[in-house]
Amino acid sequence: MGSILKATIGRLPAYLRCLRSFDSVEHETVSAQEIASALGLGVVQVRKDLAAVSGSGKPKVGYDRAELVREIEAFLDLESRTLAILIGAGALGRALLACDGFAAYGIEISAAFDSEIDSEGELFGRPLLPMERIRSYCVEHDIRLGIITVSASDAQDACDMLVSCGVAGIWSFAPVSLSVPQGIIVKREDLALSLAHLRSLTSDRA
Amino acid sequence: MGSILKATIGRLPAYLRCLRSFDSVEHETVSAQEIASALGLGVVQVRKDLAAVSGSGKPKVGYDRAELVREIEAFLDLESRTLAILIGAGALGRALLACDGFAAYGIEISAAFDSEIDSEGELFGRPLLPMERIRSYCVEHDIRLGIITVSASDAQDACDMLVSCGVAGIWSFAPVSLSVPQGIIVKREDLALSLAHLRSLTSDRA
Repeated sequence: MGSILKATIGRLPAYLRCLRSFDSVEHETVSAQEIASALGLGVVQVRKDLAAVSGSGKPKVGYDRAELVREIEAFLDLESRTLAILIGAGALGRALLACDGFAAYGIEISAAFDSEIDSEGELFGRPLLPMERIRSYCVEHDIRLGIITVSASDAQDACDMLVSCGVAGIWSFAPVSLSVPQGIIVKREDLALSLAHLRSLTSDRA
Repeated sequence: MGSILKATIGRLPAYLRCLRSFDSVEHETVSAQEIASALGLGVVQVRKDLAAVSGSGKPKVGYDRAELVREIEAFLDLESRTLAILIGAGALGRALLACDGFAAYGIEISAAFDSEIDSEGELFGRPLLPMERIRSYCVEHDIRLGIITVSASDAQDACDMLVSCGVAGIWSFAPVSLSVPQGIIVKREDLALSLAHLRSLTSDRA
């Protein structure tokens, strides 16, 4: 397989979702063209991406769907669970804790932290802890990802805390851009912008 | 200005967010290159997109930032509020109702509906209504957008209801693909996939 582009790795979860969504009876095999159409990508791109992680594609036949799913899951190492913590147990933080879709991608939000909490509690079966506990918790549980669901004004502090706790990636819902040291990846989720995009596409001008 | 591509219109909210985020003192003017860098787009693309909505770009000077913001806001008609309703007043639905970022893009979530509700209530200052009220509410308030925050198994029913109520766009958080008649736009928000993307980028393979 050799080296593999970061952009390719970034697209693998979407390939996985797409392949899982195909009916297993109707789609014993699946072509690069079908995947490309479903994801709105070019077919050359799809072939190149999948060649990096799979040896199962056959000319004129396509990929064995189940095998390709297994290959991507193995590449992404979904067997080993990646643990995330969340800072900010407000409405959005609670909604994410209640969301059960993360496990399918090998992710578990294992605890929530909130500066308003002063004693240990529980939220959707996960520990809800005061901020003083965050550093020891992250070390003890080898936390890789941090989720920020605090207000814009508190987001940089939460981000700095996560960085100092050694996370590799930060998923932020706060409507501000965050400063992090090189090597830490921040992914900003802007729900308002997302709905604004839909609004613009449905406007009378579009 | 002539005709304008749907893809361009779809990018306008992101241009707006970017321009608003620039400091107004440091950035009295802003170049296409600065905008392109901030958004990860090509500079040719940015010039072309902005030429479709703005006459304020000047060679070697760039755009008057405040003027460009006004031009995009006017194009997107942000003065006139677009109303959205939400189906599914669970944790995620409540989080969206609590989110105050939509107003900046001319959107208001004006009511929530839930099949578990049998009498009129209130949630974050907005009416929380039983499903029987949805049709009359949509007609009365000219609802353009619908938001689905119900479970996967209930999502298509919620979607069909929104379509029959005349919405133009549907923003769905349910982890299923939805069938809609031609002309209705569905935007699926997959939070688990989004975090999976971050996980893949921070993996040891990346």
